[in-house]
Amino acid sequence: MRTSIATVCLSGTLEEKMLACSKAGFDGIEIFEQDLLVSPMSPEEVRAMADRLGLGLDLFQPFRDFEGVTEAQLQANLHRAEAKFQLMNRLGMDLVLLCSNVATATIDNDELFIAQLRQLAELAAGYGVRIAYEALAWGKYVNTYQHSWRIVQGVDRPNFGLCLDSFHILSRGDDPAQIAQIPGEKIFFVQLADAPVLSMDILSWSRHYRLFPGQGGFALDEFMLHLVRSGYAGIVSLEIFNDVFRQSNVERTAIDGLRSLKWLQSQAAGLLAGSGQHSALELEALPGAQEATAFDFAEIRTEDPERVAGMLAQLGFAFKGQHRRKPVQLWASGEARIIINSQRSRGVEAAVSGFGVQVPDPGAGGARGTSLLATKVPRQQTHHEQELPGFLAPDETEVFFSSPANTRNWEREFLDAGEAAPETGNPAVDGIDHINLAQPWQCFDESVLFYSSVLNLEMMPGTEVPSPMGLVRSQVLRTADSCVRLALNIVPQGLEKAIERHHEYPEHVALRTGDIVQLARSARARGMEFLPVPANYYEDLAARFELDGQLLATLKELNLLYDRDEQGEFLHFYTKTLGNMFFEVVERRAGYDGYGAPNAPVRLAAQFESNRWSRN
Amino acid sequence: MRTSIATVCLSGTLEEKMLACSKAGFDGIEIFEQDLLVSPMSPEEVRAMADRLGLGLDLFQPFRDFEGVTEAQLQANLHRAEAKFQLMNRLGMDLVLLCSNVATATIDNDELFIAQLRQLAELAAGYGVRIAYEALAWGKYVNTYQHSWRIVQGVDRPNFGLCLDSFHILSRGDDPAQIAQIPGEKIFFVQLADAPVLSMDILSWSRHYRLFPGQGGFALDEFMLHLVRSGYAGIVSLEIFNDVFRQSNVERTAIDGLRSLKWLQSQAAGLLAGSGQHSALELEALPGAQEATAFDFAEIRTEDPERVAGMLAQLGFAFKGQHRRKPVQLWASGEARIIINSQRSRGVEAAVSGFGVQVPDPGAGGARGTSLLATKVPRQQTHHEQELPGFLAPDETEVFFSSPANTRNWEREFLDAGEAAPETGNPAVDGIDHINLAQPWQCFDESVLFYSSVLNLEMMPGTEVPSPMGLVRSQVLRTADSCVRLALNIVPQGLEKAIERHHEYPEHVALRTGDIVQLARSARARGMEFLPVPANYYEDLAARFELDGQLLATLKELNLLYDRDEQGEFLHFYTKTLGNMFFEVVERRAGYDGYGAPNAPVRLAAQFESNRWSRN
Repeated sequence: MRTSIATVCLSGTLEEKMLACSKAGFDGIEIFEQDLLVSPMSPEEVRAMADRLGLGLDLFQPFRDFEGVTEAQLQANLHRAEAKFQLMNRLGMDLVLLCSNVATATIDNDELFIAQLRQLAELAAGYGVRIAYEALAWGKYVNTYQHSWRIVQGVDRPNFGLCLDSFHILSRGDDPAQIAQIPGEKIFFVQLADAPVLSMDILSWSRHYRLFPGQGGFALDEFMLHLVRSGYAGIVSLEIFNDVFRQSNVERTAIDGLRSLKWLQSQAAGLLAGSGQHSALELEALPGAQEATAFDFAEIRTEDPERVAGMLAQLGFAFKGQHRRKPVQLWASGEARIIINSQRSRGVEAAVSGFGVQVPDPGAGGARGTSLLATKVPRQQTHHEQELPGFLAPDETEVFFSSPANTRNWEREFLDAGEAAPETGNPAVDGIDHINLAQPWQCFDESVLFYSSVLNLEMMPGTEVPSPMGLVRSQVLRTADSCVRLALNIVPQGLEKAIERHHEYPEHVALRTGDIVQLARSARARGMEFLPVPANYYEDLAARFELDGQLLATLKELNLLYDRDEQGEFLHFYTKTLGNMFFEVVERRAGYDGYGAPNAPVRLAAQFESNRWSRN
Repeated sequence: MRTSIATVCLSGTLEEKMLACSKAGFDGIEIFEQDLLVSPMSPEEVRAMADRLGLGLDLFQPFRDFEGVTEAQLQANLHRAEAKFQLMNRLGMDLVLLCSNVATATIDNDELFIAQLRQLAELAAGYGVRIAYEALAWGKYVNTYQHSWRIVQGVDRPNFGLCLDSFHILSRGDDPAQIAQIPGEKIFFVQLADAPVLSMDILSWSRHYRLFPGQGGFALDEFMLHLVRSGYAGIVSLEIFNDVFRQSNVERTAIDGLRSLKWLQSQAAGLLAGSGQHSALELEALPGAQEATAFDFAEIRTEDPERVAGMLAQLGFAFKGQHRRKPVQLWASGEARIIINSQRSRGVEAAVSGFGVQVPDPGAGGARGTSLLATKVPRQQTHHEQELPGFLAPDETEVFFSSPANTRNWEREFLDAGEAAPETGNPAVDGIDHINLAQPWQCFDESVLFYSSVLNLEMMPGTEVPSPMGLVRSQVLRTADSCVRLALNIVPQGLEKAIERHHEYPEHVALRTGDIVQLARSARARGMEFLPVPANYYEDLAARFELDGQLLATLKELNLLYDRDEQGEFLHFYTKTLGNMFFEVVERRAGYDGYGAPNAPVRLAAQFESNRWSRN
């Protein structure tokens, strides 16, 4: 599938945008007219630069407000169009996007639209220009793709076809299935955009909140299937107006965009394989579409390993050994493995620096990450050390693929500590329940796509949690069976400043236990410091749930928090924060499926109170 | 009028919020339950602290989802309510906010609502608690104030009354006029919120985008008049859910909130004075409601006065003299006075640091600023120097009040330079057209209220301008006759970082001339460096407007930009940027009333291109 992206998606100058698109690996770009207009580069320079970079100049856009006007206005519009066709000739471009009239149309008459557009098509033909006509969702008279298709049929000129944009179709709730009935060769161009499910006026939604495929709520894989059925074999491009992308690093955004198209192709190819249908559009499937079966480990980077080790010991973890080559320790309890790494830790009090997942075929996982343009983590293998393919997430977390067999191998790299099992008879912690990562606002959507595509996780509905420094937006990604769960939190801007100054917005590793009361008691006996929970919380808990007095007293005694859903109960506690991280311990009773969201504000406020965060 | 504010409006801990509200001068607060719940302070401590600060604990809020439920649910709800009434007794609070049921109501029957609410009222009476019932705009069955008022009449208990919230009424487009028919003593509490005009689902709009009165689009002055007609004499409070306020400095937000209530009182008092009606609510009018007649001066702070002076000389300004006591120069052309100040300029290459306006009575202007809690600029007057009342705006711009007579006085403080008029026969620049100030995102709404209330300016509709680093949101404020115009620009977050690192987001002073072509020619002859305009811009201009070839050639020759509206034409140019600022020169032909907004992206891109801004 030939990929393209509109320059309006990206930040920076036209030159910077072209370099970034080329570097990411796009086949071509759409030139957003204003980007050219404000550029000091002449059209000839743009053309020559695109040639050098091997970037197609796929679409010149947008031309606006043409049809449905008075005769005098039509002449002015033709004059305006001719100047653009001449400019396109200088650029060596042959396809222009024409949006349905939003502003100047005064006459609602399909015959008139057709007659005027035919004049435009004939003028364009003289310049070798083809026109892709797009129904904007807020077009004055033409605002559905079905209507624009009737117009295109009426114009009936070989250089006049359709442009389809998923946003304009799906934002209205229109059914994309009729795309399959349009002959593919009359679809001149396709633009894809995803978007979060928002209820707001379509124009604002479109201008500010579009997302790359896989970052929002649109069923773009199905959209692609309808397109395949039409016989379309052309370019699939991204046209995303997003306030954050416009402010972000242009090279990263370009990679993020191309990743979204690679992921979407693969999703659509998966659907298509089921249908046994032929596709003129070559849809490349990604390798390694496999379900993670468990967390392999979580890694804490710290310049002071003793303090992290001390917390793990308090939680009943056993020291499993020192790595034979690196200043790295392994601690374990049940299936929970925690690596304490003091490489590259200067100035890092403690931080969640990475994690691994177990998959059936780690090599295929690595190939998938590479196909998705993820940055590899450089890692030496020497003397039969186990290779673990690893990638750097947008938030700089390191993510590794292992398998149960590989895990047994890498565990052997740690010199046996010869230590007995932990003091309690049965290990208190059974495994890693979830990992909670903070995301700077610039990379939240990028991270969502990275983790969901590279790790093949599902997006759950998002939530928002109040904190003393602003709302924290939270997004859970997980495997279908919940074996691996990640919570991504977008950090409010006030907090982000706090991070920059003091590296204190805490991330955490949540550990799973079958008996949290027992575990909390023994941890306390071993000197664990808990995050204090205010007395007011327990009074409110008593008013909200009819808890028996015994349970309430235990919760209060041990600083445990409590939640309940339709299925069951959730008990959890937090350790105090160390540097940039802390541990949570959770007990899920009878199929409770959440994360104690109602308690998150209590945690954030208590962490704020305990002066771990800087004040403005 | 007794003022209050909900703690949910503010950032920080409950303790910090209470301190900030007391310091700003609020009479009381609403305790948002969650703020108490996450606080380590006991209810008794909160009560004692409020006593010490002299802050009323006016409203405990919210109690939710009570009425319209099954009998079993009712008993659970009464149990939950009783715990809260006991808590209120410990807090010494007697008024609770009850929101109409959003979630758990299953039976739509007013008689049932009334019967269940009467049980609640009777339970509350035993604890000395009064209930203020509020119709939420998204309430399941009760969602208008008219409906909640019928319910209150039905319940018919002395401790059961109404809470009115302007957001819930005006966001639905409901007519607030019927408030006047409600007996004031049955309105137990009033919450005010403004909001921008947005078309989105009311719940999201309410949760994220509420604003203090005067920052949005609601006609709250008229809302207040309806309230006055009801005979209401109680507390007027602010309940604002706003993502930015939640992240901002708590003390500043508290002052911003109280300023909004002072401004609103005064606006309502003005409307009321016209009607000759009595008000049980004491509405204090602000002093000094006068129209500014002109800019008095603009002030540039710089550690390198020669470079600014050089630009002014190139623009035809004359050096008027050095201040007799301070390292401050005055330059003038026509009615445009520019002060170059090198006090407190260490590290400041050049920045727009302040401006003055002329008003009929500067003393009254100063009294108005003080009443509006504006921070005074400390300024020495010695040896008969003219006093100019001055205030520090939220963006740290210094704003002064003068009058034509006072201006003649302060001009005399500058030692006569004995210089001839500028070289051209007639002064090229006639006056200051507008001043364009950058606003960090945290203080945009605060600045809008500050400038509009302290300087008595009108808000115009906002616009958005694309730049290579993101969208710049722009808001014009001006006098009715356009003598004084300010443009506030909210700086995208990417740019804000650029500012922090390099102080390079440029602000500007726009100067007015009657003959821009002549002025540009002579400035060029004197060596002025213009901001370069790309050739592509002029080609697009030719396609958009049918300009004659002569004019187009002149525009291109002199780096002039062009725009046209229904009234007339606009020609303008920009100087190159110096430090953090530049000058614009504008010629308005035949009543053109805008600011060349279509050209702003060209300017921003050219400034970005010329490497004045740092790259990420």
